[in-house]
Amino acid sequence: MLKNIYFAEKPQEEECRMRLKAARERLAGLQMKIKEHKIPVLVLMEGWGTAGKGNIISQMIQNIDPRFFKVAAMDSPTQEERRKPFLCRFFAQIPEAGKFTFLDSGWMDEITGMRMRGRMSQEVYDRRIDSVKRFERQLTDNGYLVMKFFCHISKKQQRKRIEALVSDIDTRWRVNDNDLWQNRHYGKCLEVFDRFLDDTNTSSAPWYIIDAKSKKWAELQALETLIQGIEIALQNQSLSVPLLQNVFSLCQMPRLSEISLDKSMEEQRYKKELTRLQHELGELHNRLYRKKVPVVIVYEGQDAAGKGGNIKRITQALDPRGFEVHPIASPEPHEKARHYLWRFWTRLPKTGHIAIFDRSWYGRVMVERLEGFCSENDWKRAYNEINEFEKELQSWGAVIIKFWVQIDKDTQLERFNDRQNTPGKQWKITDEDWRNREKWDAYEAAVDEMLQKTSTAYAPWHILESVDKKYARIKALEIVAGELKKALE
Amino acid sequence: MLKNIYFAEKPQEEECRMRLKAARERLAGLQMKIKEHKIPVLVLMEGWGTAGKGNIISQMIQNIDPRFFKVAAMDSPTQEERRKPFLCRFFAQIPEAGKFTFLDSGWMDEITGMRMRGRMSQEVYDRRIDSVKRFERQLTDNGYLVMKFFCHISKKQQRKRIEALVSDIDTRWRVNDNDLWQNRHYGKCLEVFDRFLDDTNTSSAPWYIIDAKSKKWAELQALETLIQGIEIALQNQSLSVPLLQNVFSLCQMPRLSEISLDKSMEEQRYKKELTRLQHELGELHNRLYRKKVPVVIVYEGQDAAGKGGNIKRITQALDPRGFEVHPIASPEPHEKARHYLWRFWTRLPKTGHIAIFDRSWYGRVMVERLEGFCSENDWKRAYNEINEFEKELQSWGAVIIKFWVQIDKDTQLERFNDRQNTPGKQWKITDEDWRNREKWDAYEAAVDEMLQKTSTAYAPWHILESVDKKYARIKALEIVAGELKKALE
Repeated sequence: MLKNIYFAEKPQEEECRMRLKAARERLAGLQMKIKEHKIPVLVLMEGWGTAGKGNIISQMIQNIDPRFFKVAAMDSPTQEERRKPFLCRFFAQIPEAGKFTFLDSGWMDEITGMRMRGRMSQEVYDRRIDSVKRFERQLTDNGYLVMKFFCHISKKQQRKRIEALVSDIDTRWRVNDNDLWQNRHYGKCLEVFDRFLDDTNTSSAPWYIIDAKSKKWAELQALETLIQGIEIALQNQSLSVPLLQNVFSLCQMPRLSEISLDKSMEEQRYKKELTRLQHELGELHNRLYRKKVPVVIVYEGQDAAGKGGNIKRITQALDPRGFEVHPIASPEPHEKARHYLWRFWTRLPKTGHIAIFDRSWYGRVMVERLEGFCSENDWKRAYNEINEFEKELQSWGAVIIKFWVQIDKDTQLERFNDRQNTPGKQWKITDEDWRNREKWDAYEAAVDEMLQKTSTAYAPWHILESVDKKYARIKALEIVAGELKKALE
Repeated sequence: MLKNIYFAEKPQEEECRMRLKAARERLAGLQMKIKEHKIPVLVLMEGWGTAGKGNIISQMIQNIDPRFFKVAAMDSPTQEERRKPFLCRFFAQIPEAGKFTFLDSGWMDEITGMRMRGRMSQEVYDRRIDSVKRFERQLTDNGYLVMKFFCHISKKQQRKRIEALVSDIDTRWRVNDNDLWQNRHYGKCLEVFDRFLDDTNTSSAPWYIIDAKSKKWAELQALETLIQGIEIALQNQSLSVPLLQNVFSLCQMPRLSEISLDKSMEEQRYKKELTRLQHELGELHNRLYRKKVPVVIVYEGQDAAGKGGNIKRITQALDPRGFEVHPIASPEPHEKARHYLWRFWTRLPKTGHIAIFDRSWYGRVMVERLEGFCSENDWKRAYNEINEFEKELQSWGAVIIKFWVQIDKDTQLERFNDRQNTPGKQWKITDEDWRNREKWDAYEAAVDEMLQKTSTAYAPWHILESVDKKYARIKALEIVAGELKKALE
């Protein structure tokens, strides 16, 4: 794109001023429509060092109420951030519905920066491109407006700017090593930038190249393009998008109705196994902490299936500094206003840590599907989105263990009654639990579909037969210990 | 995609039968909705030789009323088709709104076939991929549902099928050289197929890979995927899509108001020049016919600007066997029901021929824009679509000459009055001409925008100042002769 880019002629001073004025007013007006139509707008500003990315952003935001936007300067990832999947810090920044996020550099800068310095192999680069395309598609599929700008200047222009900045003691700090390096290796950088732009130029999130040789003109191009993007986004209401074919290899799963729930374990053996396995798990936890392997454990299951007690048997074995349990209830307003995976991306463990999710992103294809909290296109698309999300975790090196804790309808009734009749347990049972129970069959069908479609080879589901809780706990401990051992080999 | 493709487990015979029955009934029902919502559906069936593409199509169409679909087997291009841009014969096949077209192989087969035999350079391949992506995007942007299937079988399965077909005298004809060649070079073909699928797998027109090892199962996959695609398309009403940045270099054009219309030519000189230029043009026409250069000439201009007389002075010089004039009025119903460029794709000249369009595809950004015959998103997108269309013509080797024939408002009034008052000319003036005249200013603004945005370096606009028709005719002849000479050098 960059090499033969055609730029419109820069308009005369006077025309430029008038169009700028008009564009600023228009954007100020559009911010209310964005709010009203609940559209989240992500503006990614990439480009050459000293091309004026920051300046364009500061001009843009002057037309927007501070309550409606956020600016994030994405420098190199911190030590902490390096311990998360590379997309994590970008996903964390996505705006709420009705608001803007401006990113001063982002995933392009991170990837191309490493690539042009020879610090990223072709293989890793190809994987990153896949990840970026999936990330952007997940955003636009879920109603995000993603506007991607690249500020372009020539080698000569860049050198001039660097010289001007360096010559003044007050602006010298604004030139960094990266800018100098880019200018020395301009041709090589151009090659890498150009390739990246081509590789990620999609019809739902296309690139816009800004001729950044003059400040006002650059601002005008960015503003007018942003306005055009917003106007088009406003025309579309709750878009349906094609469902992609599954490309991940899947494990065959039984239907819930085929699972025999008569498995049990007698007390004596349970205690012995529990002690042995918890001891083993504790040791494994130390080793994976040292080896910096991240672990994600997911628990899903019917109400009263015994998830809480099961999780407790795992965590009893772990060093509290190295794990976290995330109980997942219905999303808070600020969570609901974002991509449904946002609250999970922002709860990922660091390398070497264990995150246990008591309920999870699978809510999308269970409760959100059944209660109509999202559209049919949304939940049908979610199987693939979830597989892609877990694929990111796996590529990052995570061990992913997913448990479906299964009981039958009679056992649930027994446990519900027990909860209702035991003063100390009454907090555990609500009207909603009874209401959900009425939809048992619909849930079962949804869970069957979920198990079939998301049991990937890299993140398969494990069934815990939990009519006898002791049996289920030992089985869970065995699976966790087994998976960790495999990962540490 | 192909190399690590994961296929769902083939269901049991009984389940397969039940799902097939359900899918067939569903498709039969959906055809009416497709009709009602005026959605055009293009089904592209690609895949290995003997994988059963034809069989899947024949199973699919059994569920659709013959009035609503068309099947086209796209063999290798004929001699005649080779004299058109390669996309031409595919564009010609796109369905009307509310109908299906099934293509038994298409642009993938043509491109990969040449590529795997080493008959297409990397450079041409890259250009073809760009063309294909633009073609598919133009279709989906304009509301087409484009479903792309690839029928996959293993080398062993293919060999077995070939052997079975060859062993029976009645089916031997169904195995062609291509099938045998593919099987011998299976690995190489896989490589090329895989690359093509990756290169053209977009989110608005994604590929679906069909596991074609069993007939019934292949049919089921295709049917269920098609149904899913239709259901999603039905959810979307008049979609707006992002406007892409212009990537073609543009020539600076004057505004209409800046053009001085006082140019004229006296009779004596006009006659001399006319004779000289028409003679020259005649000679050039012979040479370009021999050299097989295709020529596309477009005339646009206000009513009564003198397009007809101007065109006549060109055609007088040409051999009637080598040119065609296409007067373009409002589209017929079967034209309106397709992509607006369809009626131009299907009117392209063969190599060595000249096509003159008296009005053209530019109606999209003039009359269709101003009369509200298309949405704002439609006409705003059209500048790029038109530039892409003309780019295809240029890559194919065409000379493209576009004339804007310009007069002022007073001159138009004079000519209108003259037409109205001269019995022999009354047929040339209608109420609509008077109505259009009232919108003069709006037209002028639209034409200014059109001239700015579509005057590409490879297909620039030429202004013909036509208050003095003689001047305009000589200028047109000079430009045509000049461009043809350049092309023949």
